[in-house]
Amino acid sequence: MRHDEKGFTAASLDQARITGGFWEAWQRTNREVTIPYVLDKCDETGRTQSLRLEWTSDADWQPHQFYDSDLAKALEAASYSLHQYPDAALAERVREYIRLLGRAQQPDGYLNTYYTQTGIEKRWTNLRDMHELYCAGHLFEAAVAHFRATGERSLLDIAVRYADHIDARFGPAETKAPDGTPKEPGYPGHEEIELALVKLADATGERRYLELARFFVDARGHEPHYFRVEAERRGEPSDRWQWERGYHLGEFAYYQAHEPVRDQTAAEGHSVRACYLFAGMVDVAVSTGDERLLDSCRTLFTNIATRRMYVTGGVGSHSHGERFTVDYDLPNESAYAETCAAIALVFFASRLVNAELDGRYADVMERALYNGVLGGLSLSGDRFFYANPLAFHPTAPMLPHVRSDAERQPWYGCACCPPNIVRLIASLPGYLYSVNDRTVAVHLYAESSLEVRTDALSGTLTQQTAYPWDGEVTFTWQADSPAAFTLALRIPQWADDYRIVLPESAEAGTDAASPAGTRLERGYLSVERTWNPGDEVRLTLPMRVRRTRSNAAVRQDGWRVALERGPLVYCAEEVDNGPQLATLALPADAAIAAEHRSDLLGGCTVLRGDAVRSVVGPYGSETDDAPLYTEAGRRERVAFTAVPYALRNNRGTGEMRVWMAEL
Amino acid sequence: MRHDEKGFTAASLDQARITGGFWEAWQRTNREVTIPYVLDKCDETGRTQSLRLEWTSDADWQPHQFYDSDLAKALEAASYSLHQYPDAALAERVREYIRLLGRAQQPDGYLNTYYTQTGIEKRWTNLRDMHELYCAGHLFEAAVAHFRATGERSLLDIAVRYADHIDARFGPAETKAPDGTPKEPGYPGHEEIELALVKLADATGERRYLELARFFVDARGHEPHYFRVEAERRGEPSDRWQWERGYHLGEFAYYQAHEPVRDQTAAEGHSVRACYLFAGMVDVAVSTGDERLLDSCRTLFTNIATRRMYVTGGVGSHSHGERFTVDYDLPNESAYAETCAAIALVFFASRLVNAELDGRYADVMERALYNGVLGGLSLSGDRFFYANPLAFHPTAPMLPHVRSDAERQPWYGCACCPPNIVRLIASLPGYLYSVNDRTVAVHLYAESSLEVRTDALSGTLTQQTAYPWDGEVTFTWQADSPAAFTLALRIPQWADDYRIVLPESAEAGTDAASPAGTRLERGYLSVERTWNPGDEVRLTLPMRVRRTRSNAAVRQDGWRVALERGPLVYCAEEVDNGPQLATLALPADAAIAAEHRSDLLGGCTVLRGDAVRSVVGPYGSETDDAPLYTEAGRRERVAFTAVPYALRNNRGTGEMRVWMAEL
Repeated sequence: MRHDEKGFTAASLDQARITGGFWEAWQRTNREVTIPYVLDKCDETGRTQSLRLEWTSDADWQPHQFYDSDLAKALEAASYSLHQYPDAALAERVREYIRLLGRAQQPDGYLNTYYTQTGIEKRWTNLRDMHELYCAGHLFEAAVAHFRATGERSLLDIAVRYADHIDARFGPAETKAPDGTPKEPGYPGHEEIELALVKLADATGERRYLELARFFVDARGHEPHYFRVEAERRGEPSDRWQWERGYHLGEFAYYQAHEPVRDQTAAEGHSVRACYLFAGMVDVAVSTGDERLLDSCRTLFTNIATRRMYVTGGVGSHSHGERFTVDYDLPNESAYAETCAAIALVFFASRLVNAELDGRYADVMERALYNGVLGGLSLSGDRFFYANPLAFHPTAPMLPHVRSDAERQPWYGCACCPPNIVRLIASLPGYLYSVNDRTVAVHLYAESSLEVRTDALSGTLTQQTAYPWDGEVTFTWQADSPAAFTLALRIPQWADDYRIVLPESAEAGTDAASPAGTRLERGYLSVERTWNPGDEVRLTLPMRVRRTRSNAAVRQDGWRVALERGPLVYCAEEVDNGPQLATLALPADAAIAAEHRSDLLGGCTVLRGDAVRSVVGPYGSETDDAPLYTEAGRRERVAFTAVPYALRNNRGTGEMRVWMAEL
Repeated sequence: MRHDEKGFTAASLDQARITGGFWEAWQRTNREVTIPYVLDKCDETGRTQSLRLEWTSDADWQPHQFYDSDLAKALEAASYSLHQYPDAALAERVREYIRLLGRAQQPDGYLNTYYTQTGIEKRWTNLRDMHELYCAGHLFEAAVAHFRATGERSLLDIAVRYADHIDARFGPAETKAPDGTPKEPGYPGHEEIELALVKLADATGERRYLELARFFVDARGHEPHYFRVEAERRGEPSDRWQWERGYHLGEFAYYQAHEPVRDQTAAEGHSVRACYLFAGMVDVAVSTGDERLLDSCRTLFTNIATRRMYVTGGVGSHSHGERFTVDYDLPNESAYAETCAAIALVFFASRLVNAELDGRYADVMERALYNGVLGGLSLSGDRFFYANPLAFHPTAPMLPHVRSDAERQPWYGCACCPPNIVRLIASLPGYLYSVNDRTVAVHLYAESSLEVRTDALSGTLTQQTAYPWDGEVTFTWQADSPAAFTLALRIPQWADDYRIVLPESAEAGTDAASPAGTRLERGYLSVERTWNPGDEVRLTLPMRVRRTRSNAAVRQDGWRVALERGPLVYCAEEVDNGPQLATLALPADAAIAAEHRSDLLGGCTVLRGDAVRSVVGPYGSETDDAPLYTEAGRRERVAFTAVPYALRNNRGTGEMRVWMAEL
C-alpha cells in the first residue's frame, strides 16, 4: 500500500475551508439566512423561553423533552460558522445563550430545562423516552465546537460540570460515584451522547468521558434491560411498547437495545438513533483501539449500505417508528428517510473513513450528503423537509402511512432536522480532508483549501473545481520547500474511467492502468512523491449520465432506473414533465444529455432526453367516463427533463419521482 | 329497446340452481366442508357459548360485540344450502341454534348476547362502535333465508319480535313508539340492517320495516350527528376518533356519516360498511320508487368502479381503517381489499343490475365474485384470507401498514369473512338470473337451470357451459308450448367479438352487427322472439388472454399489465416463476397462451409465455458483497406462468404479483 490505512484525523476548521463553488453558495446561505433563522425560531417557539426557565403552568407554550437539543445544535452550528467567519454580533448572541445556559444549570451540574421546570424530582426516571442524555450530548457537541471556535471556556465548563454529573450517576452496576453512591446502569433511549462524550474527552483530555461513552455503548441489550427496570420503578407496564407492533425483534429493537451492540448485525429501529449510536461506536472503537467493536461497525455499515439505504443515502424506510424495516424494503412514495437520518449516516460513514481509508464509506458519505441531506433544505435556506420520499404524489399526504409534506416547511414541532442540517453545512470543511503522519487524503471534491501543519509537513493544498457540475479538479501544493508525502484521492465507485495528470508528467492514468507513481486501492488513488512548491495534479472524473439499477431483491424498483450524474441523484418533477410521472418510461437506448442551466435553481445541470409515455385508453384519465381498466393503450414519444433530487420542490409542489420505468 | 330496463327480480333459490361445472365444485366444497367447518368454529370459539348465555366473568372466553353476526351468517348460509340440498342433520342443527336464539331473546324482543351477558343496561348506548344493529341485520337475513328455505317461522318470528323492538326504539326524533316513548334518531356505525330490513319487509309484508330502513339510510350525516350525541351521553369526548388520522373528510367519514347519503358522491370510509349501506340504499330506492336515491347509488357505484376498485374487484385500499382512501390510490402490496368488502360490492352491484339492467354493474359483480371474493377461500374450503393484496412478498407481513397473511388462515378473531363467503356461494344461483314480466336476463354464465313461473310464462331455461375455462354457452328453453319473451344475455365489456347462434338460424352476430332479432344495449344482448320448446341459443365469448392496463391516474400500475382471461384475473406465483417477481417483465409482443391443466389446482387454465428477467449486476443478489445500486444489468429470456388469482396460495406461500412490468 502506498497510503496508510489507519490513523487519520479529519481536518479541523482551522485547517480546511470552502473557498468557492457549489458549497460556498450553500455555506453563504447557511451563514446569512439559515443560522439566524433557526436561532430566531428557537426564540419564537418556546425553546429560548424554556432556557430562560420562564415557563409557568398557565403559559401558552410547554417545555418539551427535546427543546434543549434544538438550541444546542443551533449553537453548535453558529460556533462552526464563527470559527471560519468572524461575526461579532453572532458571537455576542451565542454568548447570551451561554449565559442563559449557565443560569439554567443546577448547582449539581444538571442541565435540562424540561425537568427543571416541570419537576426536577422526576429527572433520570425515564431514559428510554425522555431524551435527557440526548440533549446532554448535543450540549457537549456545542460546547466543544464553541471552545474550538473561540477558545472561550464558558460553554465547555458548563458541559464539563454536566458531564461530571452524568458520569457520577451512570456507569456499571457494581461501580460507585466519588461520593459512594452506587451508579445506575442506564443508557439513553435516544443515542447521541456517546459520540459527544468522545468529543468532550478529546477536547478536555478527560478519559472518564471516553469510559462513560464506552459504558453507554456496551450497556445496551444486556439483561436485565434497563428500560424494563426503570419502567417498573415508574409503575408502568414494561411490556407495552407502542413502536413495536409489526416488528419481529421484540420490544427493544426500536432503541437498538434488543441485543448487545457487538452482536448486532443489522441496523434496526429508529434510524437516527441507530446511526448516532454507530458513529459513537466507531469513536469509542478508534479511541480505545477496540478492533472487535470496529468490526461490528463494519458489519452494521455493510448491512445499511448493501440492504437498507435509498439511492439518495436516505435511511429509515417507514414512518411508523421512523425506522429501518427489513432488508431490501425500500418503498419510494412512503419512504420516511428523515433528513436527520441521512445526516447521522454521514457522521457514521465519515468516522469509518478516518478509521480506515476506504472508498466504500466515502461513497456513502457523499451519496447521503448531496442527496438525502441537502434535499432537506430549500434553496432559500429557510424551508425544511423532515421526510424525504423518493416519489411524491399530491394525494400521498392523505395516506396514513405517508408522512411527507407537499412543500418544505418553515419549522416543525419536532424540529430536529433544521438545526442538524445547519451544523453539518457549517462544519462541512471537516469532511473533505483527513490527514495522518504521511498522507493527505481527499474525500470530497469542492473548491477549498487545506492547511497542513504536522510535525513532518507544512503547506497548503488547494482544490479548484466546479464539482459536482463538472468533473475536473485541480490540486495545487503550496509550501516553502519540497516535501515527501502521499496524496490519496478518492475515486468514487462510479468513476470507472477517471483520468489523472501528475506534476512534471503528461502521463494519464486510468484505474485499469494507474500511471507510474500512483496506486488505486480501496477507492483511493495514492500519489506518493516528493512535492515541490507549486506542483499541480489534475483529476478528471467522468460526468456521464448513469442509469442506476437497484439490487434485484428490491422489489419496489424492478424494471426501474434512477438517473445519476457525479454524486447527484436526479428526479423528474411535474413542473418539467407534467403530471402522471408513473406513465413515463425511459427507453434503454435513448440518449440522455446533461445541460448546464445557469438560470435554473441557482445554476444547475439538468438532464434531458426522450421518454415514452404510456397512454391508456382512447380517453383522458380522471373523467367519470374513463374506465379504470382497459386493454386500450398506445405509446407516445415525449421530452423528458430531470433535475437534481436535492433541488426538487424549489419551484412549487407537484409530483416527483426518482425511479423511472425503463423499457 | 328490446328488453325492459327495470323491475327485475333476482331469481330465487326455488327457481335457479347450479347444475355442474366450476361453481358446482365450489358449492359442493361449501356444503361438505365449509358450512359445517364454520359452524364448528362458532361452537369452538365462544360464539355458540355466547348464544347459550354461558359467560361468567371468570370464563376463558369473552363475549364480543360481533359474535352474534358470525353465527347468524353461518345460519343464513346453512339455510340457503338446505333450500336446495335437503340435509336432515344440518336442518336439525340449525333448529337447535334457533332454539338457543329463542331462549336468548329478551321478553321485550331484544336479542344481543354481548349486552345481555355483559350489562344489558348499556344496550343501545353506543351505536357507533358496538355493532348491535349490524348483528340484528344479520339475524334478519338469516331468518328470511331460513323461512324461505324451510317454510318454518321459528327464526322469522324471533326476527320480527326483535325488529319490532328496534322499530319502537329508533326513528325520526319527532316520532313516538306505540307506547308513547319518543324515538331515538340513531343509526348504525356498521351498516347492514338497512338491506336486511328490506328483506324482512319483503318476507313479512310489513311496511314499517321498509320505513325503518329508509330512516336509517337518510338519518346519517345530518346535524346533530347522533354519534356525537351518544358519545356526550356516555361522557366521552366526541372529537377523538381513532380512525380519522390522515384523512380529510372529518370525523364521520369512516361511518359514511360525514354528510347525508344523498349528497355523497364518493365511496368513503370503511369499505364493507360503505358497500352494505349502498346495497341497502338501492333496496330502499327500488322498494319506495325513490329515483333521487337511486341516482345517488349510481354516482357512488361509478366512483367505486372508475376510481376506487382493484382489478380483482377488491375495495378498501388501506388497512388503517379498512377503508377507501382517495381516487386512483390502489397500492398493490399493501392493499387491504377485505374479502367481505368484495362480497359487499357484489351485493351492491347485483342490486343495481336488478334496478336497471346494465352490464356496467354486472361486469363489476362478476369481477369481484371470481377474483376478490373467491380468492378469500382455499380450494380445500377450510382456510380463509381476510386481506387480498395484489402483490405479496414474504417480508411484507412484517411491515406495519400491511395486514396480509402469508397463507390463508383457519379462522380469525374477527371472523366476518369466512361465514360471509359461505353464504354468498350457497346463494349464488340467485345472482345468475333475473326475471321481469317479459324478460329473462342472464348475468353470469354457469352450468345451471332456471325455472320460470310467472303469470305470462312457464318453462325452464338451462345453461350448459365450461365457463370460465371456456367461452361456449348453450341455452335451451324447455316448456310445454311456445311462448313470447325476451332473453337478455349479458355481453361482458371484454367480449368484443362474441358470437351468437339463434334457433332456426345459422346467422351469427357480433356487437358490430347484431343479427336479426337481437339488439345489444347497455351490455345485454336481447333476443326477443317466440320460443318453441327445445329452442337452443349458443353464445360464444372470446377467451383470449387480455393485457389489462390501469387508468393512467393509478400511479401504482404505470407501465404494468394485469393478465385476464374471461372473468379471471391472473397472477404470477413464486412456485411457478421463482422469487423476485418484480424483475420479470412481459414484452408487449410476446405471445401468452392459455393451457388447460386438469391436474393443477382442481383443474384450471394457466397462462404461459416468455418473459424477460432484469438481471442486475454481475453477481447474485442478497449476498453481502452485492452492491445495492449499480449500472450493470442484462436481460434474460425466461418462461413465465400465471394462474388465476382466486387460486393463488394453494401450493404453499411465496411471492405473488398481479401487475407485471410490461416492456
